[in-house]
Amino acid sequence: DSSLKVFTLNSNPALAEEIAANIGVELGKSSVTKFSDGEIQINIEESIRGCDVYVVQSTCEPGNEHIMELLIMVDALKRASAKSINIVIPYYGYARQDRKARAREPITAKLLADLLQTAGATRVISLDLHAPQIQGFFDIPVDQLLGVPILSNYWKEKGLEDIVVVSPDHGGVTRARQMAERLKAPIAIIDKRRPRPNVAEVMNIVGKIEGKTAIIIDDIIDTAGTITLGANALMENGAKGVYACCTHPVLSGPAIERIDNSEIQELVVTNSIPLKEEKQIDKITQLSIAPLISEAIIRVHERQSVSVLFD
Amino acid sequence: DSSLKVFTLNSNPALAEEIAANIGVELGKSSVTKFSDGEIQINIEESIRGCDVYVVQSTCEPGNEHIMELLIMVDALKRASAKSINIVIPYYGYARQDRKARAREPITAKLLADLLQTAGATRVISLDLHAPQIQGFFDIPVDQLLGVPILSNYWKEKGLEDIVVVSPDHGGVTRARQMAERLKAPIAIIDKRRPRPNVAEVMNIVGKIEGKTAIIIDDIIDTAGTITLGANALMENGAKGVYACCTHPVLSGPAIERIDNSEIQELVVTNSIPLKEEKQIDKITQLSIAPLISEAIIRVHERQSVSVLFD
Ligand SMILES: Nc1ncnc2c1ncn2[C@@H]1O[C@H](COP(=O)(O)O)[C@@H](O)[C@H]1O
Ligand SMILES: Nc1ncnc2c1ncn2[C@@H]1O[C@H](COP(=O)(O)O)[C@@H](O)[C@H]1O
Repeated sequence: DSSLKVFTLNSNPALAEEIAANIGVELGKSSVTKFSDGEIQINIEESIRGCDVYVVQSTCEPGNEHIMELLIMVDALKRASAKSINIVIPYYGYARQDRKARAREPITAKLLADLLQTAGATRVISLDLHAPQIQGFFDIPVDQLLGVPILSNYWKEKGLEDIVVVSPDHGGVTRARQMAERLKAPIAIIDKRRPRPNVAEVMNIVGKIEGKTAIIIDDIIDTAGTITLGANALMENGAKGVYACCTHPVLSGPAIERIDNSEIQELVVTNSIPLKEEKQIDKITQLSIAPLISEAIIRVHERQSVSVLFD
Repeated sequence: DSSLKVFTLNSNPALAEEIAANIGVELGKSSVTKFSDGEIQINIEESIRGCDVYVVQSTCEPGNEHIMELLIMVDALKRASAKSINIVIPYYGYARQDRKARAREPITAKLLADLLQTAGATRVISLDLHAPQIQGFFDIPVDQLLGVPILSNYWKEKGLEDIVVVSPDHGGVTRARQMAERLKAPIAIIDKRRPRPNVAEVMNIVGKIEGKTAIIIDDIIDTAGTITLGANALMENGAKGVYACCTHPVLSGPAIERIDNSEIQELVVTNSIPLKEEKQIDKITQLSIAPLISEAIIRVHERQSVSVLFD
C-alpha cells in the first residue's frame, strides 16, 4: 500500500495545513519561490517516489500565477516518480469560460483541464464546479464535492425561523432546492428581466417572500452586484430579513463595499478561497471545507466511494 | 492560397505592429482584457476561418500572465477554425529550466512546449533559445532565428578597432565565435572558478585582452551580475574598453543599476523583450528584430527555407 502525501502551493496554505492535520500526516516539504525575473521555482524537498500525492491549490486570484504553480508542481511530481498525482482544486478558476457564448471565444475551462492532464495530473478533487459539464472536460476521474451540506448545517444551527431559500437566477435553482430540502423550507427565485435594450433590469420574485427570512444561495459571488440588488428586491417585496451564502467568495472589485452597504445581514462562505485581511468584514462568516476534503482524500486513497459525502 | 494574419497579445505590441507593417498587412483585430477577478478575456474581432495565423508574444515578465494569454489565444484561434496557428515567441521564458539540475526539479521549458501544443499551436518561430535542445521539446516545427547577425552588423557599422569578442562563460563560446567571424576578430573566454566552497569566484581570462576593445556577447542578461563582474575583470586585465551585447534583455532586479555603474560603455540588445521606460538608460541601445521576424514569417508562409536568414 503506497503512502499518502499532501503538498500545498501558494493559494491555500492554511487549508492545506488543516487537511494534513485532519488526515494525520505532515504537510509535504516543498517551497515555491520566484526567480528575480518572476519565473516560478519549485523545490520538492522530500522523496515522493511511488507515493500517492495530493496537491492543494485553488486557481483563485492571482489565477494565472496559481495555475502555473500547479502545472509546474505536477510536472515536477511526475518526473520525481509519484505513483498518482491528485490535484485538489477547491475553487476551479476560469469555470465561467465554459462555452462559446459569442463567436471566436476560447473555452478556457476546457483548456485548463487539458493543460492539467498534459502536465500529468491523474485525478481531480474539486468543489462546486460552476457548471457540472466541466467534469466532462477531463479524461481522468473527477470527484466533485458540494458546498450545500456545509452551508445548510450552518443555517440549521443558527436556527432562523420562517426561512425561504432564494436562488439569485434560474441557473441556481437546483442548488437552492438542495438547501431548501435540508432546511425544510420553500424556495423562491429572482427573475431578472430587461424589458427593452438599454433599460435597467427589473427583478421579479417568483415565490412567497412576505414576512419571511430569505437566505440567498449562489456558487460564486464575484463583484456581488446580483446578490446585493437581489437583497434589495427581497426587502422591497416584504422579506423580514436577508441572509446570503456561497461556496466560492471571489469578492473582486466593489464586492466588499457593496456587501457592507447592502441589506444582507450576514454572508456565509467557505475557505475554498482564503479571504485577504481587508475582506474579513464583520458581516462575513467563513466555514472550513477541510473536514470535507480530508474525508474525500481518505476515501479516494482507500478506494471507497466519495458520493456518501453528499448526504 | 490562404491568407496571412498577424495578431498581438500584451508582451510586444509595438514589435507586432512593426512586423505587420513590414509584411504589409493590418494587425488582426483583437483585445486582451481582464475580468474584475483578474481572469483573462480574449476577443478576436474578425474572422480567421481558414487563415494562417501568426501570434506574436514573448513570454517575458510577467511571464505567467503572458503564457496564459498565449495559451488562451491559441485555444480561441483553434476553435475559430484557423488553418494554422504559428506562435512567434521572440523570447522563450522558462528556457533556463531545461533540465533536472537537482533531484525533483520540474523541466518547465518542456512543460511549456507541451502546453502550447495541447492548446493547438502548429508551429513555433523563436529567437536564440537558451538551449538548442528546446527545439526537441516540441513535436511541431520550430524555426530558431539568431540574434548574432543583427548584433554583429551594429558593431560593424560602429567601426570599433582592435576588437576581441568575449564569451562570459564556456557555454557561450559558439555564439562568441559566430560573432567573431563576422567581425574578423579573435575571441576570449571568461573562466569563472570557485577555488574552494564559500570563497568568492575568481575570473580568469582565456585569450589576449591587453590593449584591445572587448565586446562581451551573451544570449540573456538577467540580473547582470556575470556581465558586469566580467567587464571589471577585462579592464583589470588591460582591455582598452568594454562593450556588451545580448539578444534578450531580461534585466531584472539590480540589473540596470549594475550596468549603469559598471565599466560597460554601451550595451546593445534587441527588442525581443521591450524595455520599460525606467530601463531605457543612455548606455543601452535597442535594435529591432522586426525585419528578421517579418522575413521569417513571409518565408514560412511561402514555404521557403528560413535558414538563409542566418547568413
Ligand atoms: N472571470 C470572469 N468574470 C466575470 N465574467 C466572466 C468571467 N469569466 C467568464 N465570464 C463571463 O460570464 C458568463 C458566463 O457566466 P454564467 O452565465 O454565470 O455561466 C460568460 O458571458 C462569460 O464571458
Ligand atoms: N528564471 C530564472 N532566473 C534565474 N535562474 C534560473 C531561472 N530559471 C532557471 N534558473 C536556473 O538557472 C540554471 C540554468 O542556467 P544555465 O546554466 O545558464 O542554463 C539552473 O540552475 C536553473 O535552476
